[in-house]
Amino acid sequence: MYAPLQNDNFIRACLRQPTDHTPVWLMRQAGRYLPEYRATRAVAGSFMGLATNTDHATEVTLQPLERYALDAAILFSDILTVPDAMGLGLSFALGEGPKFAHPVRDETAVAKLQVPDMDKLRYVFDAVTSIRKALNGRVPLIGFSGSPWTLSCYMVEGAGSDDYRLVKTMMYSRPDLMHRMLEINAEAVALYLNTQIEAGAQAVMIFDSWGGVLADGAFQEFSLAYTRRVLQKLKKTHDGQRIPHIVFTKGGGLWLEEMAARVVGLDGGESGADVLGLDWTVNLGAARARVGDRVALQGNLDPNVLFAGPDQIRAEVARTLKSFGAPRNADGSSSGHIFNLGHGISQFTPPESVSVLVDTVHELSRR
Amino acid sequence: MYAPLQNDNFIRACLRQPTDHTPVWLMRQAGRYLPEYRATRAVAGSFMGLATNTDHATEVTLQPLERYALDAAILFSDILTVPDAMGLGLSFALGEGPKFAHPVRDETAVAKLQVPDMDKLRYVFDAVTSIRKALNGRVPLIGFSGSPWTLSCYMVEGAGSDDYRLVKTMMYSRPDLMHRMLEINAEAVALYLNTQIEAGAQAVMIFDSWGGVLADGAFQEFSLAYTRRVLQKLKKTHDGQRIPHIVFTKGGGLWLEEMAARVVGLDGGESGADVLGLDWTVNLGAARARVGDRVALQGNLDPNVLFAGPDQIRAEVARTLKSFGAPRNADGSSSGHIFNLGHGISQFTPPESVSVLVDTVHELSRR
Repeated sequence: MYAPLQNDNFIRACLRQPTDHTPVWLMRQAGRYLPEYRATRAVAGSFMGLATNTDHATEVTLQPLERYALDAAILFSDILTVPDAMGLGLSFALGEGPKFAHPVRDETAVAKLQVPDMDKLRYVFDAVTSIRKALNGRVPLIGFSGSPWTLSCYMVEGAGSDDYRLVKTMMYSRPDLMHRMLEINAEAVALYLNTQIEAGAQAVMIFDSWGGVLADGAFQEFSLAYTRRVLQKLKKTHDGQRIPHIVFTKGGGLWLEEMAARVVGLDGGESGADVLGLDWTVNLGAARARVGDRVALQGNLDPNVLFAGPDQIRAEVARTLKSFGAPRNADGSSSGHIFNLGHGISQFTPPESVSVLVDTVHELSRR
Repeated sequence: MYAPLQNDNFIRACLRQPTDHTPVWLMRQAGRYLPEYRATRAVAGSFMGLATNTDHATEVTLQPLERYALDAAILFSDILTVPDAMGLGLSFALGEGPKFAHPVRDETAVAKLQVPDMDKLRYVFDAVTSIRKALNGRVPLIGFSGSPWTLSCYMVEGAGSDDYRLVKTMMYSRPDLMHRMLEINAEAVALYLNTQIEAGAQAVMIFDSWGGVLADGAFQEFSLAYTRRVLQKLKKTHDGQRIPHIVFTKGGGLWLEEMAARVVGLDGGESGADVLGLDWTVNLGAARARVGDRVALQGNLDPNVLFAGPDQIRAEVARTLKSFGAPRNADGSSSGHIFNLGHGISQFTPPESVSVLVDTVHELSRR
């Protein structure tokens, strides 16, 4: 059905297999820092206008691949599509973040929550298939979802927050309601990601963007436990190919050992993340020592490095590669490291900085 | 000159000496969640109207001690007084955060920076002396300052930020300018804290509120190195009493070993923090194992716990005490833990929740 993969370095690195070079992609690589993205968005009229239109979503997903020698594409979409499909009424006001018309703040609202009909998310799966076809085997396509906890943050707060007071108040005062919501979210996220895999996603990533705001103890109970539940239900292979599972908890550096732990999956086999995404506060070498050979690592340049000049960008890229350390494989091939930023790229980034980054990663890591 | 200290549990815990109970105080304990604070602020007209008036500053500092059995008082002031005294023009717009009229964004602005004349901060030292007298030995008084890095964040950004783009751009592209600014800040902070100690502060705390936004490597170079420089210059004793030094890097949990390291001070003796403040992402027991007996630990309840009911607050307090683990001392006395929140108390906190917290800490830890 699809063209064979020409550049599989990303997939190989996820599975800790030898690679030609350290693969690189950037979170939010299809985004506002690119003039061609802004042009397409102007035509589409809005962020969701882009995400819900197959042609637009395909076009913007491929835009950064035209400019840069990236080793993976990531579906253009938003982490809030799932709660939107649950009927919470997502909107993006201009210049502001996302907003839900119907936040989930009490027992009645929680009781009404259901795993959404995947037909309501058809536009996402259509985009996945369209992008996969358009890629024509150039690089693999990553699908994604927000984590159950991160979705709950938005579902309760109704918008972004700087203190997570409402969601944490529910968590501390009515843990039963929070667990109920998280169970539904975990079920929905697993179904959503598996449907993306069936539609053509060759790897999937769970963005636990707000796991790091939780206290030690609460993180394990309210975030990690439900991420694990998703991982247990995810397809490990499709069409005979392994589908790597990536988990990124921003601010989760203290919990890497627990995040890397393998648990028994629903099929009786091993389950757990293949790759952990890391933000820039984590030392890659120290992280590698802590998680051993259980997972690959993805990250972790500070996106603000891209505001410096080319020499500084090159120096910081070199430092990041060096901090991961020597390759695992006896033949000297790099493996187990996927280069990325520690967070999404800033909309103010000069596009030429990304060329310097991508080319330097390849140059310095090529065998 | 001052009345002898009646309750020295806080000081003793900072120095890892036996205590009667685990001492407790709360960051921002004199604040908007208290109706009496809001009343005084209405009289003063503004936040800086409170901070610059000795009587008001004394009154609001003591307000939480009237309500709760807290084991320490903390000077009512702001971390931005030092850059304000440098001539950057601090203002607080209603409902917004702090703002500087003259942010420091280029070589010319950095070249103009100087350690401010401490006379411009006389209102702070007068408040310290007035509060110390008014406390009359009830509990010790903590003085404080922002860390050199945290001050730089505000000085460059000119206001709060969610991505620290401007300050990090300067840091990555012109590290020479950033180091120059940090040297001046370190000098100013050391002088500011030493003058607070002379004015009556019995312990001092360095708030490295934004150290945790730095990448591994950058934290050590641009934040910790300058916090250390301050620590090297701080008075260790005054009037024959040890003055504990507390360092709190929000989001610094990955760097505790380095933060707890002792270095040679300017006097040729040992220098370093006596206490590390921890946010709620850190497991106290794990932190204790990592830093050994080198420092005491302060923290680290999630302030959002205070939005739950009394039973849940008690349970979470018990969990926090338990996570620190058994006392160090052979006689079973608690030492080396100062109970606090992992961040400032929210303005929306029900005041009665704080009673539950403070009383539970004392009840459960009393010998």
